[in-house]
Amino acid sequence: MTATITPVLAQIDQDLPQALERLSALLRIPSISTDPAHAGDVDKAADWLVAELGALGFAARKDKTAGHPMVVAEGGAEEGPHLLFYGHYDVQPVDPLELWESDPFDPQLQDTPKGKVIRARGASDDKGQLMTFIEACRAWLKVHDSLPVKLTFCLEGEEESGSPSLVPYLEANRDALRADLALICDTGLFDAQTPGITTMLRGLLGEEITIHGPARDLHSGSFGGAAMNPARVLTRILADLHDENGRITVPGFYDDVPEITDELRAQWDGLGFDPDAFLGGVGLSVPAGEKGRTALEMIWARPTCEINGMISGYTGAGFKTVLPAQASAKVSFRLVGQQDPHKLRKAFRDFVTARVPADCRVEFHEHGASPASVMETSHPAFEAARGALSDEWPKPAAFVGAGGSMPIAEDFKSILGMDSMLIGFAKDDDQIHSPNEKYDLDSFHRGIRSWARILDAVSKA
Amino acid sequence: MTATITPVLAQIDQDLPQALERLSALLRIPSISTDPAHAGDVDKAADWLVAELGALGFAARKDKTAGHPMVVAEGGAEEGPHLLFYGHYDVQPVDPLELWESDPFDPQLQDTPKGKVIRARGASDDKGQLMTFIEACRAWLKVHDSLPVKLTFCLEGEEESGSPSLVPYLEANRDALRADLALICDTGLFDAQTPGITTMLRGLLGEEITIHGPARDLHSGSFGGAAMNPARVLTRILADLHDENGRITVPGFYDDVPEITDELRAQWDGLGFDPDAFLGGVGLSVPAGEKGRTALEMIWARPTCEINGMISGYTGAGFKTVLPAQASAKVSFRLVGQQDPHKLRKAFRDFVTARVPADCRVEFHEHGASPASVMETSHPAFEAARGALSDEWPKPAAFVGAGGSMPIAEDFKSILGMDSMLIGFAKDDDQIHSPNEKYDLDSFHRGIRSWARILDAVSKA
Repeated sequence: MTATITPVLAQIDQDLPQALERLSALLRIPSISTDPAHAGDVDKAADWLVAELGALGFAARKDKTAGHPMVVAEGGAEEGPHLLFYGHYDVQPVDPLELWESDPFDPQLQDTPKGKVIRARGASDDKGQLMTFIEACRAWLKVHDSLPVKLTFCLEGEEESGSPSLVPYLEANRDALRADLALICDTGLFDAQTPGITTMLRGLLGEEITIHGPARDLHSGSFGGAAMNPARVLTRILADLHDENGRITVPGFYDDVPEITDELRAQWDGLGFDPDAFLGGVGLSVPAGEKGRTALEMIWARPTCEINGMISGYTGAGFKTVLPAQASAKVSFRLVGQQDPHKLRKAFRDFVTARVPADCRVEFHEHGASPASVMETSHPAFEAARGALSDEWPKPAAFVGAGGSMPIAEDFKSILGMDSMLIGFAKDDDQIHSPNEKYDLDSFHRGIRSWARILDAVSKA
Repeated sequence: MTATITPVLAQIDQDLPQALERLSALLRIPSISTDPAHAGDVDKAADWLVAELGALGFAARKDKTAGHPMVVAEGGAEEGPHLLFYGHYDVQPVDPLELWESDPFDPQLQDTPKGKVIRARGASDDKGQLMTFIEACRAWLKVHDSLPVKLTFCLEGEEESGSPSLVPYLEANRDALRADLALICDTGLFDAQTPGITTMLRGLLGEEITIHGPARDLHSGSFGGAAMNPARVLTRILADLHDENGRITVPGFYDDVPEITDELRAQWDGLGFDPDAFLGGVGLSVPAGEKGRTALEMIWARPTCEINGMISGYTGAGFKTVLPAQASAKVSFRLVGQQDPHKLRKAFRDFVTARVPADCRVEFHEHGASPASVMETSHPAFEAARGALSDEWPKPAAFVGAGGSMPIAEDFKSILGMDSMLIGFAKDDDQIHSPNEKYDLDSFHRGIRSWARILDAVSKA
């Protein structure tokens, strides 16, 4: 520990109550990007961030896009490495609302058996995380009146709705955004003791399919037996997507899926991952993916196909003997290795179309496509950051995989020619995308301290 | 035609505008029995009928049940045959509301290429139909100050929600309700020219199944691949319910399904049923049931399995990469011959349970069970009614089947020891259970005249 960082860490400890108040203010804004009814709230969250960053001395602005705005801010040192920090200020929808124990947009500081948490939609994904970085900068500026690196913020408002405006924005602002390295704060700890730098991320392909049958909803007595039921067609198609070994049956699906190296497998085996605890935490016990694979492989290194939602006919209280006119499902694929989302979208649509019988037709609607990412860990900042994280947390930091998708890293590489380092402090039990989302106070506090240390270490790397 | 009936028919013709106004008043009451929010409206419809029947001189009352009330009224001749009339005053839900061209509870008299119609939820099923009988009684009473038969009304408020209170009510009121014959007005014409007396009805078995998986909705990135998705389990189960020939695969399902006799097949072949027109009317062309069966067999004489509704995960606008905690479906079976709904409920539940994997559990919820009905047509009233209908309509009346279910006929037989005669004037294009339900003015007008003639004919049979 150096004389530079010690007073910054002390300042962070002292300012924690105020940092929590600032986070709470941001969490109170219901910035649900996928729901058009909340467009004004997304905008309000952007304005809040522009004001915060401006007050810290950054040149902050809200850039228009075809969708929700991008918050951009520039500042920091004239010399030294130039870092671009990415996070997102939009959040997931909150339904089913009745399962929340408190208002998702009225953040609560709560004591739990595992320690204090702040509970609200977005507490972990991603408002709490992005605020760890902003608070680290605040402490640096308060103590040293300067930052050890040049810094550009790029905070997105559409991450939870497929980032439709991100690529056009990056393409239109290549020169302004290009830095030496991107820092992305939207991932998790390996476990409560062990921080991780995520070096493998799965890609994502989202599709919505609607099977149309009769011209209108029919009485299942008058027409049942003679009229094709689109819900029957849809369930047949969805059931066909997996074979009895849990493998996905879309032709060519596994063509570009690599086996992990023995070296990586050995590294992962050494992490002490406990599949029983992982699944047990959500009431499950049996890894449900491909036979012969470990649970860690299933979530970090193997592709998936999931039904994220489906609806047909009458779903209210009681019973209605309707033969529905249509049935629809939202389906997503997590991709790994070199799987090409565009090629697989076509393969999936061919697979579906081949199973649509006479008298039915299928309508497709696309919801995003991003390939998997594998990071370039030879950049010296990776080792510097690993050391900084290891100084802050009880156990040494590890290079890990992640099951989720973050097209941003791939976009930074392909559009800005810039590598990304993914560091975050979320926990598996944060219930992101679920009711009662929370962020541990320990994640928030150590997260701020971690970034303060990383800025120091990277500036010297 | 006799001197007795001629002035009654003239009175019906003269009073038609007022009869339509009375029907409209009843249609304005949104008596949706399956929706607890409309319980008060169901009660209001019952009160309206008690008032109408009381004004006609019947001893009318509203009998309490565990659910919605039963409207009962007694009156008519001291001598002669004793008939019990059954209809229902509750209606189906109206969703999807946005597909209605006018308010479902603001009845509209409209000109269409096929003639005048009255459009509203319940216009055909069953308020318009039950009012044909009440208006026939009104005309008889106006002209003759008496009815040619003894009459008991039994009007139900739970038909569209599985009739949970009907059997207990019949069992508790055996003596008060037992008559020589029941008249049930809740079926259709064979076609616009040809009235029908329905002598075969399919039974119905309703089930709701919910597959529970993870303890909460999960992020499909963090858990996808390792956690079992209940929507995947549900679609596999639902897809397994039919084989490639359209047959239902539940073990023992066809054990008690008889083949129709050659005689009945010949009679049905003679009806000139046009499957292309039947399916074409709802945008379809290929009979979707068991291979090797005619469309008429599929809807009148073969059992079915239909998905009436299903829901899982995120179904709102946009996309949410959720791995849902549960998935549910409403499934119904139409039954024929001697199929036992209770035996088949168990067979279905065994079928489902056998397909639920580790880490998932299934929850069942029952929604009614009624066997198929085959009427005893040797009762002299059947021939009398057939003659009366043939006098009123352009083509002679026929004994027909019906794909829908009406447990009431079976209940009248088993509990009250009474045969039922099912006569109604609905058309296939009435859009019952769908948006924009209507009843033809011709159905309403000739329906009233038909009942007036039937009362005359049956009283003399």
